[in-house]
Amino acid sequence: MTPPVHRQLSPAGAVRLLGAWHAGGPAYAALADALRAAVLAGTLPPHTRLPSERELAAALGVSRTTTTAAYHRLRDLGFAASRTGSGTVTVLPRPAPVAGPAGTRERAGDAPVPDPPPGAGRADLVDLSQATPPAPPQLHAAYARALEALPDYLASGGYEPLGVPALRAAVARRCTERGTPTTPDQVLVTTGAQHALALLAGTFLRPRDVALTQSPTYVHAVQALRDAGARVAGVPVPPADGPRAAPFDVELLESTVRRLRPRLVYLVPDFHNPTGRSLTPAERVAVRHVADRHGVTVVADETLSELALDGPGGGPAGDDDVPPPLAGDGASPHVVTVGSASKAFWGGLRIGWVRAHPDVLAQLARTRAAVDIASPLLEQLAVAELLGVRAQVLAGRRALLRERRDTLVAALREHLPAWTVAAPPGGLCVWAGLGRPLAQAFAAAAAAEGVLVNAGPTLTPDGGSADRVRLTFTRDPAELERAVPRLARAWARVS
Amino acid sequence: MTPPVHRQLSPAGAVRLLGAWHAGGPAYAALADALRAAVLAGTLPPHTRLPSERELAAALGVSRTTTTAAYHRLRDLGFAASRTGSGTVTVLPRPAPVAGPAGTRERAGDAPVPDPPPGAGRADLVDLSQATPPAPPQLHAAYARALEALPDYLASGGYEPLGVPALRAAVARRCTERGTPTTPDQVLVTTGAQHALALLAGTFLRPRDVALTQSPTYVHAVQALRDAGARVAGVPVPPADGPRAAPFDVELLESTVRRLRPRLVYLVPDFHNPTGRSLTPAERVAVRHVADRHGVTVVADETLSELALDGPGGGPAGDDDVPPPLAGDGASPHVVTVGSASKAFWGGLRIGWVRAHPDVLAQLARTRAAVDIASPLLEQLAVAELLGVRAQVLAGRRALLRERRDTLVAALREHLPAWTVAAPPGGLCVWAGLGRPLAQAFAAAAAAEGVLVNAGPTLTPDGGSADRVRLTFTRDPAELERAVPRLARAWARVS
Repeated sequence: MTPPVHRQLSPAGAVRLLGAWHAGGPAYAALADALRAAVLAGTLPPHTRLPSERELAAALGVSRTTTTAAYHRLRDLGFAASRTGSGTVTVLPRPAPVAGPAGTRERAGDAPVPDPPPGAGRADLVDLSQATPPAPPQLHAAYARALEALPDYLASGGYEPLGVPALRAAVARRCTERGTPTTPDQVLVTTGAQHALALLAGTFLRPRDVALTQSPTYVHAVQALRDAGARVAGVPVPPADGPRAAPFDVELLESTVRRLRPRLVYLVPDFHNPTGRSLTPAERVAVRHVADRHGVTVVADETLSELALDGPGGGPAGDDDVPPPLAGDGASPHVVTVGSASKAFWGGLRIGWVRAHPDVLAQLARTRAAVDIASPLLEQLAVAELLGVRAQVLAGRRALLRERRDTLVAALREHLPAWTVAAPPGGLCVWAGLGRPLAQAFAAAAAAEGVLVNAGPTLTPDGGSADRVRLTFTRDPAELERAVPRLARAWARVS
Repeated sequence: MTPPVHRQLSPAGAVRLLGAWHAGGPAYAALADALRAAVLAGTLPPHTRLPSERELAAALGVSRTTTTAAYHRLRDLGFAASRTGSGTVTVLPRPAPVAGPAGTRERAGDAPVPDPPPGAGRADLVDLSQATPPAPPQLHAAYARALEALPDYLASGGYEPLGVPALRAAVARRCTERGTPTTPDQVLVTTGAQHALALLAGTFLRPRDVALTQSPTYVHAVQALRDAGARVAGVPVPPADGPRAAPFDVELLESTVRRLRPRLVYLVPDFHNPTGRSLTPAERVAVRHVADRHGVTVVADETLSELALDGPGGGPAGDDDVPPPLAGDGASPHVVTVGSASKAFWGGLRIGWVRAHPDVLAQLARTRAAVDIASPLLEQLAVAELLGVRAQVLAGRRALLRERRDTLVAALREHLPAWTVAAPPGGLCVWAGLGRPLAQAFAAAAAAEGVLVNAGPTLTPDGGSADRVRLTFTRDPAELERAVPRLARAWARVS
């Protein structure tokens, strides 16, 4: 089957997308690597028709030979296909076939044969673009206890569109404990935080509405807002070393709200992805005032909130180091909170939640009827169990992440002394400053060295942050230590 | 919080929606009941502003006193709210608070306290609008074996955007066994069939595209297509007693495809929901030819396919009575198959799948990155285990459903002899003929008697089938027997 074509990249679009793509080495290879990195990062979707070789050469000011050779290399790498009359089209490399042809006697539940990351091209690839910690040791026991409770539910159809009462109550307790009085009927269980965002976007936004996010931000949130038809504008995060080193400038937020009249604002208030910073208590109050004054819905994504890493004296963090909730006393109908078990517990659970007014939850439940109906029941019981032992789970998780963060930060400071590398007080990633706007060329070179990272511009709705890369520290310390010398080689190639 | 308003119902829209709403009794009560039934059925969404009392009275040809009293009753029932200057707005009644205020010591995993169906209003409500069989006895053991296999996955982040290899292989084996040779890389695991439909709609459809369905059809499929911005047109299912008693008239399908140029056709080829009928083998070939000739994607929803109930001699069904797959030899890139564990195994699992060309799956995986990222891992392992014992699970399931179907059909024939009640050869529902176009008034009266059913027009994209109701037979036989005399009372009220 020839690849279908869904989008067209204009020559001017290619110039914007590629930025400072050529920082050394053969131009054709750098161009191919930059295009491959854009496909891997999701900024250049598969099934996009690229400009013709002639057009791209003219737009970039390179020879036609360069673009021809670059497209050739991109095809060789498996990231493009050509057909007569249709030009060159991006594709994702076909994953290797998974275990066992049909009909073999492989036992269900055998050890996994994970698909290689698309285009990895090497077995020892280190993925620092995904924030995916391993499961905590308490997970298995939580599932076992959930399985003991399951028989009570088996006579029913298994659908609970608002969530299993036991989990709604457990989430409400944790919200209340953190300072936002919450009853179970203010909690809707979702199939992960991403699903919660997609539901909120599908419920609150109509095509052409405006939505605001921090810039940079969690990139799949931007995609969920756009998939609902919204135009997404970014409110820049102030420089870390400026006078307002918060992840959000509330005055700038309010003036943007006044100007663009968004229907929804998406915020990561705690250990902001990717900068790691948290709003001050005063800024939280100010954000709530903006929401109420302008009647705009503010979605606070608390997926990372429990992942405080540093205590006040620089020692390990405890629950007291978890920032206060953006929702405050919970009285504002305009503040909606999203939480998740994916980072605090495990991604394989796929359970999240929304805390909001019951009327909002009724609307979300209606939207989900056409999306996924309900969340899996046993998973909900397991998360309720994990919330019952959350202090113990999080103590181990914070220690593990602290060690990995420190390993990555130390290695980066050793091998890449010209970079600005701050240790974030929480969350799952380092937001490294390169000192020069070479993030995309660097990400392409890093991929060629076998390390996946996120270039700053791929994390902004507007293509900014070209001097930053995001590096997650959720992999094993040995992997982190193996990755950093490769990053240094990639940096040497482009800088 | 005053209810937000998302839609407006015009007086003419109300006339269309309500159909033959007044079939006896006080007009204000019948009108309120019809509106309540429309909210319950999803045809009149919450947060819709109703016409003014004066406008509605004029449009329906009743007195203003009637509409005023009807709106008053609708508010009393909890299905409407009014605010000064905004008129009357539909709402869903607030569910009763779930167990335990925040801070109580309820143990996670306690026996469930299910939310009452919205507007139930009585404790002994029987819901014949949901097709939700109980869990099979093998489910618990499948989860236990999955839990034994889980440790192999815990060092990973838990995300498998295409699905766990063990499950992809198990689904591929079952597809192959049914006659469509399939490799694991042609299988994407989803979070249920509804999620698969939402992903397909979001991937294939752009706003204003046309999508076709059978009419009547599975109503949440229509919603998923509309949520993607599509205009949905129905291809009528021929009358059961006509010369072409198939769920689809392929010539009519082809002429409609030629006329409307749809991007996607959604079909339930086996034990069609709600009519229970299956395409003949020749019709399957013809549908594939239509797909290939016009390059239109045909989505075959096989959620019900395993639920054959009758064998050739009228005895219990076996695997040989499962219809051949619409995908045939699987060679057409235009036929996409959706399957699910929800009906064959249990709804609480929330696992489905798509069988398609790997290039299509790569696109779906990209769409899901902004929807739910991946499906829960343990659930996937449990479904792989259940597919390993599927013959045993299905034997029990078919026997249970056969008994319930026969119970419902016998009771309907006894208490409602004027209706046309055929026993479907498979699936989960009876598609009863009323003989008169009173389905909506009847559904409203049945809800008032404590039985929820689906009126035919709520299952069509175009409001047809006003002489039909859908009655599911997944509840306990004692419940079914309790429900039918109530249905007879409701029918006596409206006929």
